[in-house]
Amino acid sequence: MKKFMNRAETLVAESLAGFVAAHERLVAFGADRKFIRRRSLRPGKVALISGGGAGHEPMHVGFVGKGMLDAACTGHVFTSPTPDQIIAAIRETDGGEGCLLIVKNYDGDVMNFEMAAELAGAEHRIATVIVRDDVNPGGSKRSQGRRGVAGTLVVEKLLGAAAEAGWRLDELSALGEDLNGRIRTVGVSLRGVTVPDTERETFVLHENEMEMGVGIHGEPGRARVKFATADEIVETMLEAILSDLAPDQSDKLLLFINGFGGTPVSELYLAYNCARARLARLGVTVARSLVGTYVTSLDMAGLSVTVARLEERELSLWDAPADTAALRW
Amino acid sequence: MKKFMNRAETLVAESLAGFVAAHERLVAFGADRKFIRRRSLRPGKVALISGGGAGHEPMHVGFVGKGMLDAACTGHVFTSPTPDQIIAAIRETDGGEGCLLIVKNYDGDVMNFEMAAELAGAEHRIATVIVRDDVNPGGSKRSQGRRGVAGTLVVEKLLGAAAEAGWRLDELSALGEDLNGRIRTVGVSLRGVTVPDTERETFVLHENEMEMGVGIHGEPGRARVKFATADEIVETMLEAILSDLAPDQSDKLLLFINGFGGTPVSELYLAYNCARARLARLGVTVARSLVGTYVTSLDMAGLSVTVARLEERELSLWDAPADTAALRW
Repeated sequence: MKKFMNRAETLVAESLAGFVAAHERLVAFGADRKFIRRRSLRPGKVALISGGGAGHEPMHVGFVGKGMLDAACTGHVFTSPTPDQIIAAIRETDGGEGCLLIVKNYDGDVMNFEMAAELAGAEHRIATVIVRDDVNPGGSKRSQGRRGVAGTLVVEKLLGAAAEAGWRLDELSALGEDLNGRIRTVGVSLRGVTVPDTERETFVLHENEMEMGVGIHGEPGRARVKFATADEIVETMLEAILSDLAPDQSDKLLLFINGFGGTPVSELYLAYNCARARLARLGVTVARSLVGTYVTSLDMAGLSVTVARLEERELSLWDAPADTAALRW
Repeated sequence: MKKFMNRAETLVAESLAGFVAAHERLVAFGADRKFIRRRSLRPGKVALISGGGAGHEPMHVGFVGKGMLDAACTGHVFTSPTPDQIIAAIRETDGGEGCLLIVKNYDGDVMNFEMAAELAGAEHRIATVIVRDDVNPGGSKRSQGRRGVAGTLVVEKLLGAAAEAGWRLDELSALGEDLNGRIRTVGVSLRGVTVPDTERETFVLHENEMEMGVGIHGEPGRARVKFATADEIVETMLEAILSDLAPDQSDKLLLFINGFGGTPVSELYLAYNCARARLARLGVTVARSLVGTYVTSLDMAGLSVTVARLEERELSLWDAPADTAALRW
């Protein structure tokens, strides 16, 4: 295993230090470097806090900034941040309007964010949105039910814009819950990932295999299938999504192709092209698009397809300005 | 070799079609899909045209838009665009103020852009900047002298902003030449790349080896060395750059860490952190920073470090708005 690192014990801290130094206009470390926050907090808005294990960069630190998150807490690689980190972020960012915690549905994350919410609940108004966009309803050994994967970006963008526009905590929380039924993601991997601590690949695929339905922690997916053309792969993925999401021709869709870290951007655009053509044949409208490497699983070669059914209100929230390291428009 | 593709013969065309569809607000295909251009050309400015082989995405297509390029011509993987493509781009984008061709110093690119300039020269005013930012003065079998690598992004950003600000063709050309002496890049690779057509890795590295001084076409670098810590790797790279660039403490530096396609963003920030610390110890000032996957070599695991000595004028050009798929601020 060759990775750009000095020691496994310090790689997350060193990488975050580099991130803050590179984006000092946008972000700063919170107290004791327990989290990364917007450099300038805006009073009078609900604070949005997310986080999770390292290894998914640029999520979530790259989504901190105007129009998205107020703070992101990062744990060790594929390991939830501690309640202590989350509480510190709540204390520092709550300007009186309360805090919304956006949590991916993985057991460790859910447990630690819940504990933080409980411990800080006496002094702060807190609501939690648990993102569940994975098409796989059975979850995995790391989660009960659908996992929270690349659709988390969509939730954080929409709720971030809404918070910026002055929505109250209960309104944001309701939109978050509502979005859970309208965003679906499926991932495919061509290669396992190597976790820096263990130096082992999480699963090993043969030259003619791929893993369909993977999450973002190197856990195996729901089926190991034969490798195929991009058209065939994307068609299989869209089928799983659309049978769940059941959009009709009046729906406005967001189509998001996300790279897992080791996939060249040219292949992401090729996959986007396949998906776009397939959706056109089905007569549904792609109203917004995003293609890039945003929600990763270290250097995993693979990608996910996310489709969201958005109403006019959410299209406006999607289009609202964002000024973060990873998303900016 | 597993890649998201349908057929090797069509992968570039399919990927570009996806790119244009995903970014239709910004870009459009030029005549006969020979190049990608800004959706709205601005009359009264010099047209900036670049291009090269596919496999380096998001460069150059991701740099087409306001404040950067007017058109980008893409060849097949690691293969120069044809003179025919370049001439079509010149014809469609020259609004009367002439065209500046920005060419990476690789023999095939230089030859084809020169031929296009010659053939179109009777009807259009054309100047050419050949980017030579590689620290390796000897070049490789694909180039005479320093290659044009990640520093090309810096040249395209600065000249793009200058063109937007109304600089004339001769002024842009002079700045481009001047920048060649002030931008240096060195790349390191942990793994060879697999070219879709050949299905062979361009070079094979053992578990304890890395290739120092690589270009962006999978060609070997100037030395195969023992794998080391990120601190040691970055120090070696900066030494090569700084001995060439010789900045002093009054210089304002741009520090750009570029991923080659297969490197996680967390490792890029870690490398940035190492470089930033090293430069701080040397007492030189990092005035601007960029970290990301911009100038790639398919899915090569590796990164490059670029340092540019910028004067106040260039800092303003760097800060000027850009609205492209890959760079936006």
